[in-house]
Amino acid sequence: MPTHRPAIASHTTSSLIARYQRVRAQSMHLVAGLQAEDCQVQSMPDASPLKWHLAHTSWFFEEFVLGARADYTPLQPGWSFLFNSYYQAVGPMHARASRGLLTRPTLADVFAYRAAVDERIVHAIERELDEQLADVIELGVQHEQQHQELMLTDILHAFSVNPWEPVFRARVQSLSRAAEVPLAFVPGYEGIVEIGAPEDGFAFDSEHPRHLSLLHPHAIANRPVNNQEFREFVRAGGYSDASLWLSEGWSTVQREGWQRPMYWSDDLETAFTLGGRIPIDPLAPVCHVSFFEADAYARWAGKRLPTEMEWEALAVQS
Amino acid sequence: MPTHRPAIASHTTSSLIARYQRVRAQSMHLVAGLQAEDCQVQSMPDASPLKWHLAHTSWFFEEFVLGARADYTPLQPGWSFLFNSYYQAVGPMHARASRGLLTRPTLADVFAYRAAVDERIVHAIERELDEQLADVIELGVQHEQQHQELMLTDILHAFSVNPWEPVFRARVQSLSRAAEVPLAFVPGYEGIVEIGAPEDGFAFDSEHPRHLSLLHPHAIANRPVNNQEFREFVRAGGYSDASLWLSEGWSTVQREGWQRPMYWSDDLETAFTLGGRIPIDPLAPVCHVSFFEADAYARWAGKRLPTEMEWEALAVQS
Amino acid sequence: MPTHRPAIASHTTSSLIARYQRVRAQSMHLVAGLQAEDCQVQSMPDASPLKWHLAHTSWFFEEFVLGARADYTPLQPGWSFLFNSYYQAVGPMHARASRGLLTRPTLADVFAYRAAVDERIVHAIERELDEQLADVIELGVQHEQQHQELMLTDILHAFSVNPWEPVFRARVQSLSRAAEVPLAFVPGYEGIVEIGAPEDGFAFDSEHPRHLSLLHPHAIANRPVNNQEFREFVRAGGYSDASLWLSEGWSTVQREGWQRPMYWSDDLETAFTLGGRIPIDPLAPVCHVSFFEADAYARWAGKRLPTEMEWEALAVQS
Amino acid sequence: MPTHRPAIASHTTSSLIARYQRVRAQSMHLVAGLQAEDCQVQSMPDASPLKWHLAHTSWFFEEFVLGARADYTPLQPGWSFLFNSYYQAVGPMHARASRGLLTRPTLADVFAYRAAVDERIVHAIERELDEQLADVIELGVQHEQQHQELMLTDILHAFSVNPWEPVFRARVQSLSRAAEVPLAFVPGYEGIVEIGAPEDGFAFDSEHPRHLSLLHPHAIANRPVNNQEFREFVRAGGYSDASLWLSEGWSTVQREGWQRPMYWSDDLETAFTLGGRIPIDPLAPVCHVSFFEADAYARWAGKRLPTEMEWEALAVQS
Repeated sequence: MPTHRPAIASHTTSSLIARYQRVRAQSMHLVAGLQAEDCQVQSMPDASPLKWHLAHTSWFFEEFVLGARADYTPLQPGWSFLFNSYYQAVGPMHARASRGLLTRPTLADVFAYRAAVDERIVHAIERELDEQLADVIELGVQHEQQHQELMLTDILHAFSVNPWEPVFRARVQSLSRAAEVPLAFVPGYEGIVEIGAPEDGFAFDSEHPRHLSLLHPHAIANRPVNNQEFREFVRAGGYSDASLWLSEGWSTVQREGWQRPMYWSDDLETAFTLGGRIPIDPLAPVCHVSFFEADAYARWAGKRLPTEMEWEALAVQS
Repeated sequence: MPTHRPAIASHTTSSLIARYQRVRAQSMHLVAGLQAEDCQVQSMPDASPLKWHLAHTSWFFEEFVLGARADYTPLQPGWSFLFNSYYQAVGPMHARASRGLLTRPTLADVFAYRAAVDERIVHAIERELDEQLADVIELGVQHEQQHQELMLTDILHAFSVNPWEPVFRARVQSLSRAAEVPLAFVPGYEGIVEIGAPEDGFAFDSEHPRHLSLLHPHAIANRPVNNQEFREFVRAGGYSDASLWLSEGWSTVQREGWQRPMYWSDDLETAFTLGGRIPIDPLAPVCHVSFFEADAYARWAGKRLPTEMEWEALAVQS
Repeated sequence: MPTHRPAIASHTTSSLIARYQRVRAQSMHLVAGLQAEDCQVQSMPDASPLKWHLAHTSWFFEEFVLGARADYTPLQPGWSFLFNSYYQAVGPMHARASRGLLTRPTLADVFAYRAAVDERIVHAIERELDEQLADVIELGVQHEQQHQELMLTDILHAFSVNPWEPVFRARVQSLSRAAEVPLAFVPGYEGIVEIGAPEDGFAFDSEHPRHLSLLHPHAIANRPVNNQEFREFVRAGGYSDASLWLSEGWSTVQREGWQRPMYWSDDLETAFTLGGRIPIDPLAPVCHVSFFEADAYARWAGKRLPTEMEWEALAVQS
Repeated sequence: MPTHRPAIASHTTSSLIARYQRVRAQSMHLVAGLQAEDCQVQSMPDASPLKWHLAHTSWFFEEFVLGARADYTPLQPGWSFLFNSYYQAVGPMHARASRGLLTRPTLADVFAYRAAVDERIVHAIERELDEQLADVIELGVQHEQQHQELMLTDILHAFSVNPWEPVFRARVQSLSRAAEVPLAFVPGYEGIVEIGAPEDGFAFDSEHPRHLSLLHPHAIANRPVNNQEFREFVRAGGYSDASLWLSEGWSTVQREGWQRPMYWSDDLETAFTLGGRIPIDPLAPVCHVSFFEADAYARWAGKRLPTEMEWEALAVQS
């Protein structure tokens, strides 16, 4: 989720180029050490290959910055078809689920494409920076950061289905142990509050318009649920008690055979992570649980999840 | 399908090594020019990644030649699990359909594995050649040749699902035009014939034991059905006439929406091949049609397919 | 949806019996003229056989009125298993979808069961009426009225899948022509409003607790959308324009091949109704459209659906 | 399976009428004691409602005897559409699987239809009997007998999915105890044998033409496998050993969760039958097992199933 940044107009050319290059370099950093095969695979329909993320985020800049000019010739004819998000394959094979089948262009081709786009974007910023261009660049940068999050969740899943359990990074920083303080509930905001992004500064479409919302009296936990607490829920039979789950959640539990968080081992002692298989830290926040699992946990604990508005009101003010 | 070769015992050490190396080199030749991504992809559950074929055929030699020794230590612990054909994944994901998810070991890892296996196999032949070893080597060589056929059909399918329609080999030798002679029917063998491989020489299990079969009077076409003839079947509505299809075939036609041979274009003018998209040669044999399609064509033409025995009797004697 | 009725305490014994019998008789009236076969069929998993509705609503009274006594012996051992809503079949066959497979008890058995329950319930009201019993009776009556609505939608669907298109009632009262007045938008309530049922009088669980809700400025149409308007949406390509649909709605459109409201003919001229196939009345309210269809229509018309709170605020005050 | 009967030409009018009426009455006898609901239900896509069987077999006589006349007017317009076997519904709902949704015509309607057909068929035999008519009547009678077999298997399945386990006939004759003699293997025919129906007498299409077949040396058990023997196979883990099953059989075992014969209880002590749930007779022939189960049993026992030709040669000669 983006935070609200200072107005675009205050960017100088050089600071915008620096920001652009820093974010673009971060995407490349994420695939450092990975092989062409790792970036090719799509391990489930909801995931995308890392190669696709690298190409799609570049296509975004090409399309909306360079492509905005009347006389623009695409760098690679046909790539728009492959790498925009709305690509619809002809025939019975659903395009989104088939991204992993596109072996060409190769990862090397995509690296070259990124470099060609970067050169042209930097050139465009140097020569043509105005408020509109700055806005589009900022949008593309934010968009690429969203995909960086997806790259991490997608490679985690891809490696998790390999019996070898490859390690993405030997040294992954431990999860925050914010979840080790004693659990307490603090009053949330109540009454009429403003929700949504302020007018100035970057925000995604879904964060507008700013509007009022009525919050009822409630309290929110002072920290995330930790692994130890969630493990108690699992051990207490939480995954086999229909009364704890929303109807659609319970259908999913049964259809997919859920018995514990996806990356946890059968004995609830280890988890598969970007750092490989490691012991579960009891005091770290539980993660990689679905909405349905979080909701069932809350019901088991005699609570409920906060609404989006309750959470936003607290998060923004904190 | 293997032909019947001279008895293994007549191989000298050097000729067996030469044969082994020739076949092994052919597998590597097939992936020359392909990228790591191309060898990673599994474009449908019935296909396997080329990388898997390269590893599996090597595993076969390691397991049945080197692994036969009591004190043998596998080259790569765990590879047997991944690359034997009977690998069964734990959990809901079916192993065979998931071969394309294994990004590690990489293609480069597999190349290194092949080299290590080759070195040891050649060494074994040089030092330990006896009839039993010769038999196993021959079996492995035949097995690898079977997989070479699969590698070609699998990469054809993988490239066919890419909107770019990549070209595997710019110059693929044209299909035989054997199908251009006038169609005629020649009498097949009738009466009691011997079917199956002779006792001596290599044969797969499924070709034994040699046994007698009774053939009824019949005639077999003097050449394969050609593309022009099959196109007439398509144009005559063959794919929408239930009466021409076996029941299971018709279910498949409807479920999968078949309307023409898989690699043919909608207008029946071009086909996707290992040489890319090319005009359909009307006089070349039709290919890449399923048993159900061949059977429906034969019924439409007022004929039937030959039985396996009718065909074998004719093929062996010719 | 139940309306809020006067407090239960004001019922006299005779008026409660009259009310009970009137509602029970209405269920029987709904199946008058139907055959045993019609009451047996379950035409889709989301529907239930009419026989099941008749038994289930009776089971409700047996269980919660008669079954509340410590020494109660069920009228029919095992029926509770079949006719409560939570029946879970052992094994792979999902119970809810299998209600149509239960040929025994027969419709005649269920009629006899209803009569036996009615006799005992009337007897109980006569002898034991207190506020608690009155509450349970009222709940059961309301529950049965809900099922009467379902019986009508379920028999409509069951008859619609029969090529003969049977007629449920030769004379069905025309749909209100409330939708013929000119369309206008009237301001809805805004600000903080009370939502939910008042404390006194009957209400279902989901209508409690009464709480405050903040309504933003909005306007609501003065009448339902009519068939003529919806037909324009269909003709304008509404069912093939992904941009008009919620994501889950669009998936449903494609998966199920929706092209028009379920009971409309291909030419958009007639609809299948409880009175058989009849010409579509252009000025009657459109009905039997899903939430997704209503939502897509609203988007196409440049509007949105009212929220539940906006609608309730207007409906209750009107 | 039909046996080979004396030539049609030898029937007199009265004996043909008697035969027709006897078989037609047998179909009605099969539904005696059943309710309209029992005859309505289709408990799986591969089954048909008994009502459908009763109507379809009558439609057969109407269509092929009465309908052969140029000026014939069908008894019930539209029934041909519903009750011929090739009825294809328009739209997504597959007709065969939807036979259970047709509540109209009712069972009473079908009874009346049968009576009307019978009257006309008897009239036709009385007035117009020639060899061609006799052949069609015989075909219809044989066809109805095939459906009588299906009626029994279909009602068995329908009752088996009802937790009440209704009893079709309180007194069902016990299965033959032919399977209690000691198991022995007797030589089958070998060499060239004639297979198929003789030219004269009734036979179905699939029993022609008579032709020669070559049988290899083999032996066939002197009696069917009995329940005791099959139970040993189940207890020995036969349903969880992939090596005993054909590939398609093993897929079915896993997909459908087979663990024992369909109608056997978990403890392998009782079976659901047309006479209700009864103890399994250890010496009676095992029944209601699929081809895949029979094949797996044979492999477990170190045998194989006989081929169709081996079986026919022995059965016809015995």
